[in-house]
Order: sequence, then C-alpha cells, then structure tokens
Amino acid sequence: MVPAELKKLAHDLIQVSAEVIRGYYRSGLAIDDKSDASPVTRADRETETAMRKLIFARRPQDGIIGEEHGRENEDAEWVWVLDPIDGTKAFITGRPLFVTLIGLLHFGKPVLGVINQPITHDCWVGVVGEGTTLNGVAAHVSQITELASARIGSTGPQYYKPEGLEVFNALAAKCRFAVWGGDGYQFGLLASGGMDIAVESGIKLHDFAALAPVVIGAGGLMTDWQGKALDRCSGGDVVAAATPELHMAALEYLNR
Amino acid sequence: MVPAELKKLAHDLIQVSAEVIRGYYRSGLAIDDKSDASPVTRADRETETAMRKLIFARRPQDGIIGEEHGRENEDAEWVWVLDPIDGTKAFITGRPLFVTLIGLLHFGKPVLGVINQPITHDCWVGVVGEGTTLNGVAAHVSQITELASARIGSTGPQYYKPEGLEVFNALAAKCRFAVWGGDGYQFGLLASGGMDIAVESGIKLHDFAALAPVVIGAGGLMTDWQGKALDRCSGGDVVAAATPELHMAALEYLNR
Repeated sequence: MVPAELKKLAHDLIQVSAEVIRGYYRSGLAIDDKSDASPVTRADRETETAMRKLIFARRPQDGIIGEEHGRENEDAEWVWVLDPIDGTKAFITGRPLFVTLIGLLHFGKPVLGVINQPITHDCWVGVVGEGTTLNGVAAHVSQITELASARIGSTGPQYYKPEGLEVFNALAAKCRFAVWGGDGYQFGLLASGGMDIAVESGIKLHDFAALAPVVIGAGGLMTDWQGKALDRCSGGDVVAAATPELHMAALEYLNR
Repeated sequence: MVPAELKKLAHDLIQVSAEVIRGYYRSGLAIDDKSDASPVTRADRETETAMRKLIFARRPQDGIIGEEHGRENEDAEWVWVLDPIDGTKAFITGRPLFVTLIGLLHFGKPVLGVINQPITHDCWVGVVGEGTTLNGVAAHVSQITELASARIGSTGPQYYKPEGLEVFNALAAKCRFAVWGGDGYQFGLLASGGMDIAVESGIKLHDFAALAPVVIGAGGLMTDWQGKALDRCSGGDVVAAATPELHMAALEYLNR
C-alpha cells in the first residue's frame, strides 16, 4: 500500500516538473550547443532541483536518487527516483515524446511510477497492486498473446551491444511490426494497449523505476532479460509485455 | 507563384483532414486487427475521401494522386498529392507523430507542401520561393555546417536495403547523434531547426511531394541521393539537409 500522502506528492511533482520543462521546450532548437548552458541541460537540472525541493519540504525522511543531482539517503524506506527528461534527443530535436519519469521505491522495490509528457499532456500513473491511469482514466494492456500480432518497440539500435541487437532483431522479425524511438513514452503506450512488447538495453534505475509500476499496474509484465522482477539492484536490460505469453516468448529470444 | 486560391484550399484541406483523424486517434488501440475495418484503415480512407471531395468541389480541373484512392487527371497543370496518415505505425501505437501530408505539384514539380500533426497541433506549410511557417510563424533551418554537430534522423533501419543501411550508418556515425522514428514529422522539425539531416529510403511521391517544399521554403535542401531535385518521377531515396555543406557531406556518404 502506498500512503495517500505519497500519491499526492507524486501528483504535485508532475505539476512542478511540467511547468519548468514547458518553458524550455523548442527554445533554441537550432543552437549547436553541447555545453552546460544548453536548453536541455538547464531544463533537466532546474526540473530536478524543483522536484527535490518539494520532496524535501514534504518528506525530509525520504531518499532521492536523481539523474542529475545524485543520491541522498538512498537506504530510506521510501526513495524517490527522478529522471526529469527521459529522451534527451527527442527534447533536443523538438519531438514531444520525451517524458518526465518519477519512480517510488519501497524497500528497494518500485511500487509507484509516473510517465508524464508535458506537451501532449499524456500522464500515466501506475501503482503496483492498484492499477494504472492515463490522465485519470484506467489504462489496460492489450490481450495479444501471439508474437505475429505483437507491436514491438525499442528506442534505438545504437543502444544495444552487437549480440543484444542480434537477438532483438530476431525477436522483432517474428512480430507484426517494430517501431523505433520513444524512450519511456513507449511503456506508457504499452500500458494503454497501443504496443505489446517494449525492450531496452542498458537503461538505468532512474528509467525503469518509474516504468515498471505503470506497466504492471495496467496488467502487464516488466522484468529484466532473465525474467526477474526489477529492483534497485537490477541491470539495465529490460523487457515489458502485455501478456505472460508474449513475455515468455520474448524472453526465449532475448536469451538465445 | 502559387495562386492564393490554391493556398486557401491547402489550408482548408488541413482542417478537413484533421477533423476526421482526431475522431479515430487512439480508438481501438488494443485491437489485433489488420483487416480493412481497422481504425487506421478507416481513418486513412475517410480522410482522403473528404480531401478529394473538397478539391473536386473547388478545383475540378486539378489532378489528384492519393495514397489510398489512386490517381485522377495526373497530367493537369496543378496536381494535389495526398497522404492522409503518414506514419501508420505511429498512429496504430498511439504516438502523436504521424502526419497528414498534402503536396501540390506544378507541371510535375513540388511547389507547396503541408505537414500537419493534428493531435499536437504542429502544422508546417512551405511554399518554394516564399517560405515555410510552423503554425503561422516563419520557420528556418539551422545554420549547422559540420557533420560532427549535426542531428540526423530516419524512420527505421528496416526500410533500407542492406547496402543503403550500411552507408546511412556510416554517415550517422559521423554525426552528433541519430534519432529513429518520425516519418514526415522529422522534415518539419528540420524546417524548424530541430534536426539537421533527414534521410529516407524507398518512400513514395505521396510522401516527398509535401516534404520538399517545407524543407526548401525554410532555407534547406532536399533531393534524391544523387543530389537531383525531386519531381513526380523521382525514386524514393531522399535526403534533406539544413545547409549546402551538410547536404554535400551527406551525399558523399550515401554514394559510397
């Protein structure tokens, strides 16, 4: 059970982060700037700072693990895991597919997750054991069980090691079709029945901590490539599937 | 010079198509349906039918080439080229990155193009020799000239022939980074300075007829892989670039 106070805080973090990010979206699109002053870097840092402030004000006893500003009190019972802008390249190129990820760990396990797209106003909130909503309406995964009917996605071939890309491609070749790009946004779409399998390689705790509760709350499965539940110690090769049948079929390919 | 009457018609086609498409967006996301009754097929066909009706009512003398309902009077002075939903897989998975493409050919050459995303309300309109706008505001390509600073994109590796993918990957490896996914939407982002190079293989006239005027109107270049201007007879291997330097550098790789 996630206390109501923490759920309320998650919702307030959505508002706080979205406000900062909207101010930077598509600003300086044409800037050739990889420096610390680039719009994406500023948006990333300022957003995380604003979220950390709010958490600390309300729940000083909680831990925080953030992509930008590191770890504090990470052995606390409740730990917030923050990725202000997941999909940096989407942000830089002006695609409204980057997302803010907010995860909540209870004794190291992801129990609540938020995937929020502040421009298209797509906000998924998932709580393990309770359910997932998209903009307040219950979200459910698809009922697809056959690979031949499954829509599979992954962010990009360049994130895989060669042997990982080979098994992913073999799996994708058995599916109805593959879509590339999408980062955390894909896992929201999977929770809403728009995709059936999502695979990533080499992602981090600040990514999957938020994604797993959204997928699981919507009735899907999300584990590492060995089929183990994700926790703060998991590696970054993950697979989400709408149904146990698809999950099993995907694991078979990924472990060849 | 594109007559005002035709520009007005292009704008009205945007409204007509967006209305039909919005009614189908994310409807039946979880349906395992490849049949003719699937939401995407219905949206595609109904949208094109609505656009054709409007064109015929206003300009019976013009030709029409549509993805869904074929060719009529295609040797007319002015020919409309329609792709109601470019990015079918984005539509099916619920990603707001599919676009409606409306191109206008004058004696076989693309002179006006529309790239419209009806959910995020991103609408690019480009007229060769006049300019490109995003939601009514002038759009300009970036000034980036070095591959090392360039953001390159393509819809998916699966659309290339093996030798084409090899040269694309060699080019992408020299760029700042590559993003996948995006279909026609990428070319709008390029027109707005958010990307610097976009490459596709095997696309059709109903795709590039709308894209080229948007890119060229914004100050960029768009040709086939041999560097030739696109017209109704061009093949489907295309490259768009923000600057002549990037265009030249990209062509060198694509012709290796």
